[in-house]
Amino acid sequence: MTTFDDATAVTKRDEGRYDAQADPRFALVLAGGSGAPPAVNGGVLMATVLRAVLDAAPNPHPVATSANFLRVPRLGPAEVQVTWLKQGKTASTARAALIQDGAVVVDMTVTTGTVPDGAVSAPSRAAEGYGGEALDWTGKQPAFPPLSDCVDLGRWPGTEGANGVAGFAAHVTVLLDPATTGWRDGEPAGIPEMLGYVTLREPREPDALLLALAVDALPPVVFGLGATGWAPTVELTWHMRAVPRPGPLAVATRSRHVSGGWFDEEAEVWDADGRLVAQSRQLARVGRGRIRPLRGADGVVGSAAEPLRGRS
Amino acid sequence: MTTFDDATAVTKRDEGRYDAQADPRFALVLAGGSGAPPAVNGGVLMATVLRAVLDAAPNPHPVATSANFLRVPRLGPAEVQVTWLKQGKTASTARAALIQDGAVVVDMTVTTGTVPDGAVSAPSRAAEGYGGEALDWTGKQPAFPPLSDCVDLGRWPGTEGANGVAGFAAHVTVLLDPATTGWRDGEPAGIPEMLGYVTLREPREPDALLLALAVDALPPVVFGLGATGWAPTVELTWHMRAVPRPGPLAVATRSRHVSGGWFDEEAEVWDADGRLVAQSRQLARVGRGRIRPLRGADGVVGSAAEPLRGRS
Repeated sequence: MTTFDDATAVTKRDEGRYDAQADPRFALVLAGGSGAPPAVNGGVLMATVLRAVLDAAPNPHPVATSANFLRVPRLGPAEVQVTWLKQGKTASTARAALIQDGAVVVDMTVTTGTVPDGAVSAPSRAAEGYGGEALDWTGKQPAFPPLSDCVDLGRWPGTEGANGVAGFAAHVTVLLDPATTGWRDGEPAGIPEMLGYVTLREPREPDALLLALAVDALPPVVFGLGATGWAPTVELTWHMRAVPRPGPLAVATRSRHVSGGWFDEEAEVWDADGRLVAQSRQLARVGRGRIRPLRGADGVVGSAAEPLRGRS
Repeated sequence: MTTFDDATAVTKRDEGRYDAQADPRFALVLAGGSGAPPAVNGGVLMATVLRAVLDAAPNPHPVATSANFLRVPRLGPAEVQVTWLKQGKTASTARAALIQDGAVVVDMTVTTGTVPDGAVSAPSRAAEGYGGEALDWTGKQPAFPPLSDCVDLGRWPGTEGANGVAGFAAHVTVLLDPATTGWRDGEPAGIPEMLGYVTLREPREPDALLLALAVDALPPVVFGLGATGWAPTVELTWHMRAVPRPGPLAVATRSRHVSGGWFDEEAEVWDADGRLVAQSRQLARVGRGRIRPLRGADGVVGSAAEPLRGRS
């Protein structure tokens, strides 16, 4: 069992009630040096709640997951509660929540169903004008660079856990297109886009739970605009579109609009066979400070928070 | 008061409980001639629930709304229940549900906050490397054709209400880029994209509630692939990014992937001042039949369902 599987494990206590953890091994550090408590990566929290939902789901895949991140979890025990609103052959929907001390930390709605697995899709039937399950169409894949050309981020700002715990970056390899890593040297590309690859450091093939991790694994896309402060996710919805084949997950993120302290971050996840396996969009807050990365030979090895200056 | 405002009205009965309607004036017809009961446009149902949420919200705008469409509503009375999970200065989150006969018809999670209003945004601060509310950035606007070049869809398939009710198309003007209307003549463009404009037929300026309508107002984007059957929305999440200025709403939709009977539909809504005011993505089911449009002088005036043939 990998650290990821152990950290996201749930134990059934009663019908629709599970014991879980906000696991310190995937902790992030809030605004560098601010003394704020460590958070846990949002994708890891989603995977934890999804385990409880899938435990009693009538369909195999989480086709639509909406998550609202309401509070920073305390590192430690939590409870997951699952309530089914509808159970059907094509789609079933549950409400689920990660709860600590009687308060909802993450609130989710999950629709389960069945998405294509394995075999190459049938040829497009679009031209024939028929719909239903025979229809198969995919947009153009983003231009991912070869994996060997990408930069291993190492411990980028925010990914080192507190209290001597290695945190998120110790368990997840994030390889980024060097064209989208200028923010590490204080030279952001000026556009909110990133391209990269996500794998666990331990050997483990991708599945629905790893897709939940992948859609929120890259650094906040506004780092590309130089806003490298802590950027908490408010709402994230992702759709599973196919069962991923073995291999690294290619992830492309972009933002379409940043204003009023809010930004959207869209992610597409493609598997090693070049299939679009997940899509997400999150609404998040732009960080108010900026974190000045301190680079070492293997990437960012520390960070120092600077107060915000020159705001209008 | 416009028909839209009347149809989406709610009356407070008790704390967090509101009387509402699944209003026949915005009814759609399920798969033409199938005898299935009429549905109500999903955007109109979202607007109804949002009224109840906003009635007691501590923040003015619905910045993130996730809706799961679980059951086809019966045309008639409904109840909206609202429960607040968190109330904060920056963001507050409520769960809300449209309920009929004790069953949840539409289940929603809504986060309220404040988005920019009115004034032209401040110049980009991205180059300075500062984050927070000063940062302002927007991606490229889709190439909307002039409104005068667009085709008034009239009563496109699915928009005529049953029982002599005029339905959705009688209250909402949908003008489409003629390059994306080939499906009306059995000649779909072969790509799942549409560009158009949405206004109410009655004079009424856009606001958050009309944005909820706009993100689900165009015909299903898979019509562009020839799949013109009934395409029920399963999950739809939309983000309000700015308060819209007066004038028609420009809406661009596209799909990125269609397989296994599922398709995503993304919508961007731009206001008359060229500002990105809303974004959405929905996961929906591809229709299993196809509807053969019967064209009249003013567009589609009827439709005939055909059974599905030639499926693999």
